[in-house]
Amino acid sequence: MTDENIKSVDNSSEETFLDPATMDIQWHEYSEKFEDLLNDGLDSELIELATDISPGDLSEIVKPLSVDDTVKLISLLPRELASDVLAEIDKRSASAFVTLLDVEEIADIVEEMPSDEATDFLGELEDEKALEILAAMEPEERQEVTELLKYESDSAGGLMAKEFLAVSETADCLTAVNALKELDPDDLDEIHYIYTIDEAGKLLGRIRLVEMLMKPWSTPVADAMERDPHCVEADLDQEMVAQFVRTHDLVTLPVVDHDGVLLGVISADDVIDVIEEEATEDYSRLAGTSVDEFGETSPLRIARSRLPWLLAALVGQVGCVFMMKSFEAGLAATVALTFFIPAIMAMGGNTGIQTSSVVVRGLATGEVDVFHIGKYLLRELGTALITGGVIAICMYFVALFIVGNYQLALVLTISMLSVIVFAALVGTSIPLILHRIGIDPAIATGPFITTSNDIAAILIYLTMASLLLSEGVGA
Amino acid sequence: MTDENIKSVDNSSEETFLDPATMDIQWHEYSEKFEDLLNDGLDSELIELATDISPGDLSEIVKPLSVDDTVKLISLLPRELASDVLAEIDKRSASAFVTLLDVEEIADIVEEMPSDEATDFLGELEDEKALEILAAMEPEERQEVTELLKYESDSAGGLMAKEFLAVSETADCLTAVNALKELDPDDLDEIHYIYTIDEAGKLLGRIRLVEMLMKPWSTPVADAMERDPHCVEADLDQEMVAQFVRTHDLVTLPVVDHDGVLLGVISADDVIDVIEEEATEDYSRLAGTSVDEFGETSPLRIARSRLPWLLAALVGQVGCVFMMKSFEAGLAATVALTFFIPAIMAMGGNTGIQTSSVVVRGLATGEVDVFHIGKYLLRELGTALITGGVIAICMYFVALFIVGNYQLALVLTISMLSVIVFAALVGTSIPLILHRIGIDPAIATGPFITTSNDIAAILIYLTMASLLLSEGVGA
Repeated sequence: MTDENIKSVDNSSEETFLDPATMDIQWHEYSEKFEDLLNDGLDSELIELATDISPGDLSEIVKPLSVDDTVKLISLLPRELASDVLAEIDKRSASAFVTLLDVEEIADIVEEMPSDEATDFLGELEDEKALEILAAMEPEERQEVTELLKYESDSAGGLMAKEFLAVSETADCLTAVNALKELDPDDLDEIHYIYTIDEAGKLLGRIRLVEMLMKPWSTPVADAMERDPHCVEADLDQEMVAQFVRTHDLVTLPVVDHDGVLLGVISADDVIDVIEEEATEDYSRLAGTSVDEFGETSPLRIARSRLPWLLAALVGQVGCVFMMKSFEAGLAATVALTFFIPAIMAMGGNTGIQTSSVVVRGLATGEVDVFHIGKYLLRELGTALITGGVIAICMYFVALFIVGNYQLALVLTISMLSVIVFAALVGTSIPLILHRIGIDPAIATGPFITTSNDIAAILIYLTMASLLLSEGVGA
Repeated sequence: MTDENIKSVDNSSEETFLDPATMDIQWHEYSEKFEDLLNDGLDSELIELATDISPGDLSEIVKPLSVDDTVKLISLLPRELASDVLAEIDKRSASAFVTLLDVEEIADIVEEMPSDEATDFLGELEDEKALEILAAMEPEERQEVTELLKYESDSAGGLMAKEFLAVSETADCLTAVNALKELDPDDLDEIHYIYTIDEAGKLLGRIRLVEMLMKPWSTPVADAMERDPHCVEADLDQEMVAQFVRTHDLVTLPVVDHDGVLLGVISADDVIDVIEEEATEDYSRLAGTSVDEFGETSPLRIARSRLPWLLAALVGQVGCVFMMKSFEAGLAATVALTFFIPAIMAMGGNTGIQTSSVVVRGLATGEVDVFHIGKYLLRELGTALITGGVIAICMYFVALFIVGNYQLALVLTISMLSVIVFAALVGTSIPLILHRIGIDPAIATGPFITTSNDIAAILIYLTMASLLLSEGVGA
């Protein structure tokens, strides 16, 4: 079933790209095809097939292959395509790959990568190996990458690339066009603006290429440029960079140092990766997992990333055990009390996650700001009174129907409402407070909020019961 | 404290943009300043301040203002700036705004928007009002927007804009440059490529502007273009569009109809919005909330969006109540059994969310594919045996220490391991199966998975207890 599909897309003049509507199915089909060809040792057929595929698709197709197959495939590919695939490869395959191939060979492949991707790739290797590869690279590329390696990988400096064109403010457009012609043709793809700088290298302006096309080339660049373009400093956190790009709908973003000297350029596709990464991070926190887990295959490593969350929750639950033990007499007297413990816990837990997640995600996307804590608390209080009221009334009739005890039903109703209101207020205020004092509010979602709400829910419920049932049922 | 900050950034030649490192603080300061100026009726000062700020920042500054203040501010702004702010405004303010302003006035403002944003704006209004505004617009803009309104808002057609330049394949570069000069200068910002089409309008290729700058303008465009550029069909789902753009690191993406006729162009900043939207959607599902909730201020509407999740969970919990009731005798005989119910539930719940979330997010980002269900199940089984083993052993000693009953400790150990393994397998397989049969797997995270794991956990635990404790403690 797969062969025909693959053949039929194989007839364009330059490179094939897959049907956007069924990309993942086709990636899978190609992966299997690649595995077969690798197993059968049909190298020339493999190369022919691979070179027809666009680099982006090829990187996805390679992902499910074993480390050995990946290494074998990359070493068969033409250098430029190998560099495209290698730039997207995961950390473990990269390490395996560099131990299996000659340093000179790797250096040649890394030189083909855009400077930001080369830096990311080397940054993922052990220091010793990275230095070895760096030393084997051409001086120009080595210098670019060495400079970029100085920046934190999650800062503007860590995102930027050195492939940009800057001309002096005293130049004219013709000079700028001639400078373009001297760039490496591979680097032209990323060029959408030409930047202007003063003698000290300070960023002064940018010229849109479309502007250059419409102006006589004798025009001084100073007359064609927009002054004071959007830019960020190199040490700005990547999350802020993403927010900045999103706010201003930018395609590329120049990066400067503290003195305003132009250092590099960030492009929108790097920002897309950052936004995905940050969203996945928040999501992982909510679920009590770790971002490192994605793409991880060893159960031992996954367990290591999940156990801290589970153990922390367990410690909280031991608190629950002690608390329930202290109500032992009441529980023994009215066994029916215990029937509703799961429901009370679940409603508190769900409400806590609902409220905290809305705050955390809202802070990330800018829908929520920390300057209106009172407003959000009021809103959540109102919401909790409504949802809690509805749930509490339902609970009253459920309890009456199942246990037939009016007093117990009343205890449940009051407890349910209190637990839901309490969970909502905790779920709203904790992330806001954490954010305000500079701690990532996402840690307050997931197991943390659920466990504290569990404890609070049981305490509220059993206290209510011991107060209200003391004469009726308990005694 | 705010006034100096605001003054100090107010000295650039064109427009001010705020310090990227403290944007949200400054947005807040400006919002308050705007409110004060609006209250005091200092309109000219307000306009002066607002026109200095970049449109992106201004949209953020306006967000926290009341509907009335927003409407008043927009009607004071110059038309072009008003259109920038209006394009970013939320649905409710938009509806309020159009009822307060003259239709002609609104039409003039909407005409200033890029065609995709104008379409989104009109799409959010009531049909009748939207038609009225459309009728008052200039024919050219009206036609563009009318065409775009035909597409689903979450499809490639719904994302694309009509601001692009396409020239005939028989033209030369000079013709293309002259065509550029005839475009509306406001639309040039988005132009990074010139597209080539045949007589029928079919997309043939694209020319990078940088290429045009370096080629003699007598060159036929057919010699300067890349053939068969990446493109998508108008009815492709926006999630697929985002995946396609991400895979190929695109800055702009042409959209075609079934015959390959060029219809419009999607730009990277629209894709950034889609990726954020999809991430927020998955996140909301995990938390049991709804995306509509973001930016919502009415507790009643929020409660309406959360109650279905809570009520669904409650129905599941009523199942728990019945189940526990059926074990009433055992629970009455051994009250200590109940102490550990919260812990058993919590561990099952946490494990279920951890596993299901990794699968769901992995499916969204492409780290997980549905062709290796067996592989993921094995991986999760291995992980669950490790985490479950560790937790179960901890639980053994906790139970021994607190209750001092070896048999109960053994029941807890076995139950804990079984519950964690069960939760992991359910959490992994359900989302994969849902995805395979074409249902959004995100519905299987959050309250759904937690509630089903709660029920399973209690059933496993109490069954174990009734089997193993029957002679020892129960009798």
